[in-house]
Order: sequence, then structure tokens, then C-alpha cells
Amino acid sequence: MAAMKVHGNPLSTATQRVLACLYEKDVEFQFVNVDMGAGEHKSENFLPLNPFGQVPAFEEGDLKLFESRAIAQYIAHEYSDEGTQLLLPGSNKTVAVLQLWKEVEAHQFDPPSTKLVYELRYKPFFGMTTDTAVAEEHEAKLAKVLDVYETRLGQSKYLACDHFTLADLHHLPNVQYLMGSSAKKLFESRPHVNAWVADITERPSWIKVQDMLKQKV
Amino acid sequence: MAAMKVHGNPLSTATQRVLACLYEKDVEFQFVNVDMGAGEHKSENFLPLNPFGQVPAFEEGDLKLFESRAIAQYIAHEYSDEGTQLLLPGSNKTVAVLQLWKEVEAHQFDPPSTKLVYELRYKPFFGMTTDTAVAEEHEAKLAKVLDVYETRLGQSKYLACDHFTLADLHHLPNVQYLMGSSAKKLFESRPHVNAWVADITERPSWIKVQDMLKQKV
Repeated sequence: MAAMKVHGNPLSTATQRVLACLYEKDVEFQFVNVDMGAGEHKSENFLPLNPFGQVPAFEEGDLKLFESRAIAQYIAHEYSDEGTQLLLPGSNKTVAVLQLWKEVEAHQFDPPSTKLVYELRYKPFFGMTTDTAVAEEHEAKLAKVLDVYETRLGQSKYLACDHFTLADLHHLPNVQYLMGSSAKKLFESRPHVNAWVADITERPSWIKVQDMLKQKV
Repeated sequence: MAAMKVHGNPLSTATQRVLACLYEKDVEFQFVNVDMGAGEHKSENFLPLNPFGQVPAFEEGDLKLFESRAIAQYIAHEYSDEGTQLLLPGSNKTVAVLQLWKEVEAHQFDPPSTKLVYELRYKPFFGMTTDTAVAEEHEAKLAKVLDVYETRLGQSKYLACDHFTLADLHHLPNVQYLMGSSAKKLFESRPHVNAWVADITERPSWIKVQDMLKQKV
């Protein structure tokens, strides 16, 4: 088995998603830092790994992947017997419930939360000014999504079922960045969401990703 | 086996995605029209089917799903022996390639193309004015995505492999709407993309979805 190789940057939410998955599975991998400040992700060396010029990119032998959620799904399936079980094995109906909550993250949670991470964290970090109107618009959108989560997390401990799965893991990068911003009130004011955030951000796998980030910043 | 029930509206791209999948599988289902003009998708009757108040929603016996791509994936797996094979069965590595291109549709193609469908098709349809600056911004983004598709479709007939899969099917609604707009030049100017668009929009399943739409408009 060829060693897995992840090309990415610990500052990038998509890279963090894949790193969290690898640490949950407790499998060996090689991390190759991509210097985004120097534009390495747009270079001729990197584009064959990801034609969109984005991190992360993933290699294992002949297999080359990009898109963080596709990489995480591959790792969760290929190493299903290692570390944390991140899937919901069973019938097609059982699998569909995990897929549903993964799609909710991708199409309901990710768009407004990514906009907010950009406005409330990346812009100040890079010396730019937050557009308050844009931030408020996306806070209102995220609040509606979290209302649905509050109901769901009153019914099951995690989004797809009573154990931690990829559906929860995919949220970690944006949740962590927003908990360090004024948008944290959206999470803290909803008791079940607040308990879920405390639980998933304290996972040892996620602490390791945060440690990589601290060494970087 | 309880009959499948789809609650939706033929005008909605997400509903069209699920309908195309059902027609490809050639399986029986019941279509329940949701009158979005009357706000039925935000009503107390509908919200238990989809707490986000969006179409479509799906039922089969006790299973209730929403998010069009999760519904399509369930149907493709549950009815894998019926109609068109929309998956890429094989090893985890083979499955990962289909997942990669499904993620590319969701995170690269869908955001700019959905903005363009709204500006170039829905706004004129509902008597609103297209914001030309917004349209141009998203045309530029979509052009870059289609450059990657042009290369990929020079290597394989369809996005994931040499047969039509969910990765192609998920594109149909936005592609169809944009081919009836000024953005069609983005597709027509790229030979491999143009051939792919002609191929997938001529599928009998998709013609059936278009016929449902014509009866509606």
C-alpha cells in the first residue's frame, strides 16, 4: 500500500477537513505544505494535482483526488476498519440518512458559514475591512439553518445518528473559525447546537489539527 | 415495497434533478405538485417533509428524505438493477472518482451556474431586471470551471467515466436553463463541453422532465 500524501495548508478549511478525517482514522500519511502566499496552488507543479488550483489535493499510489469531501469519503470507506467509524453502515435507507445530512452541510450550512468565515476571520487577518451588511445577511441565513440543527440535535446526539460521522466532521473548520468571531452567539444561543459544538471541537483529532494551525500562524 | 412519492415543482432545478433520476431508473413513483406561488413549501403541512421549506421532498414508506442529490443517490443505489446504471460500481478507488466529480458539480459548477440561472432566467420570468454586473462576474467564474470540464471531457466521454452517471445528471437542470440564455456561448465555445451538453440534454429521461415543465409554464 502506497503511503497517502496530502498537499495542503493548515489555514485552509478544506485542508483541515481532510486532516481531521485522517487523524480520526489514525492512519499514517505525509503532509506536503503548499505555500499559498507564494501562489504555489496556482503553479504548474500543482495544477496537475487539482486543476481548480485549490488545496487540498490527495494522492495514494495511482489514485489522485481533490475536493475535500470526496477525499474524506474515500478515506472513511478505504480505512473503515481503522480508528473512528465515520460512516453509517447498513441498508441503502440507513446510508441515505448520512448522505442527507452531508448534503445539508454542503448546501445549507457551508454557503453562509463560508461567507462569514471570510468576512469575520480572513478579512481582519489579512488587514481588510469586514463588510457589515454582508456579514449580517449571512448571519441571518445561518441562524435559520441552525434552527433546523437545534431541532435535529434534540432528536439525536449527532446530525446523522447517535455517533459522530462525516456529516459532523465536515462542519468542524467553519464552526471553529466562527466560534472565534462575533457569530459565536448563533451557536451558543441554541442549547443543543452549543453542546454539539463543544463536543465535536474537543475531539482529539480536531485538537491535533488546531495544533498544526498554531504552528503555522 | 411502498410506492415512492416526490413532492416538488417542475420549475425547480432540484425537483428536475430527482425526476431525471427516476425516469433514468424507469421506476414507478407518484408526483405531488407543490404550489410554490401559493407558498405551499413554507406551510405547516410541508415543513415536516423538509424543515428548510424547499422542494423536493421524498417519501418511501418510513423513509423521508430531502436534498435532491441525497435523494438521487438513494434511488441510484436502491434501484441499481433497474434502468440506467448511474453509479460506478467497483473498488473504493473507482467509487471515489464518481464522488470527486459529484463534488465538483456541487462546489465548483453549481454556485456560479445557480446565480446565472437566477439572473438570466428566473428574474426575467418573474418580471425582474437582470443585474448585468452580477451576471458577468458569475459568467467569468463558470468559464473557468468549464475550462477544466473541456480538458476532462477530452479524456473521457462523461465526467466520471465513459458512461453517463449521477455526476453528469446533476448538471442537467442548470445546463438546460443556461442553454436558453446568453450564457450558452460558454458551453458552445468549448467543443467537448458542447458535445457533452448535446448528448445529456437529448436523453429520453430529460425530454420527459422538459415535457412536464412545458405543461406547467
